[in-house]
Amino acid sequence: MKKKVGVVLSGCGVYDGSEIHEAVLTLLAIDRNGAEAVCMAPDMEFAEVNHLTGVATGGTRNVLVESARIARGKISDIKEVRAEGLDAVVFPGGYGAAKNLCNFAEKGAEAAIHPEVGRLLREMAAAK
Amino acid sequence: MKKKVGVVLSGCGVYDGSEIHEAVLTLLAIDRNGAEAVCMAPDMEFAEVNHLTGVATGGTRNVLVESARIARGKISDIKEVRAEGLDAVVFPGGYGAAKNLCNFAEKGAEAAIHPEVGRLLREMAAAK
Repeated sequence: MKKKVGVVLSGCGVYDGSEIHEAVLTLLAIDRNGAEAVCMAPDMEFAEVNHLTGVATGGTRNVLVESARIARGKISDIKEVRAEGLDAVVFPGGYGAAKNLCNFAEKGAEAAIHPEVGRLLREMAAAK
Repeated sequence: MKKKVGVVLSGCGVYDGSEIHEAVLTLLAIDRNGAEAVCMAPDMEFAEVNHLTGVATGGTRNVLVESARIARGKISDIKEVRAEGLDAVVFPGGYGAAKNLCNFAEKGAEAAIHPEVGRLLREMAAAK
């Protein structure tokens, strides 16, 4: 049976989400190794950054909706995903990991993790 | 000297722009073959599609700005690009090619190509 690898996305683009090359090459590596990617992202708003200028627009987008661009729509709300369905979990980089999946970009050492990301990781750890 | 391969992007996401996997794997293939990718896109608005639902939102985004997410900001307005700087040109797929780079998705056989896309391709053909 194919191993299932969770891929936690944080948006679509390096400055406010998942770095797209990292995310796609993660999906490629999972596929080439005979496993199945299970894409997921939190359903939450984030602060949009214009990737041509690198400047925040003042607008917001939704992490799950934008992550769906990388996953071509085949994606779950992370709150619906349980560790028992997964063999591993991968976090592609990009500022979205530090801005959306936790608030490290803002709070540094005082950062808090997104509750559903923390819950899934604790489940994975408990399942060894 | 490295060959330069133009990559014409049409947004960021299969339903309203460049299919992200095709675009990234095009960039990977260019890099692995020792060439340099020159990303470009037209500076124009397009009709946004929600990639989680597949439904048009009624909003618009900008092709060049969204394509910059795939190119990590290293991208030119296609109107500034000349054939003499390129050895080849590639068009990754996605509905953006049929909606933004031309209007084939709407007009079918009566489609017109985006003027700057047509201009670059005519220059490439003339340069053989």
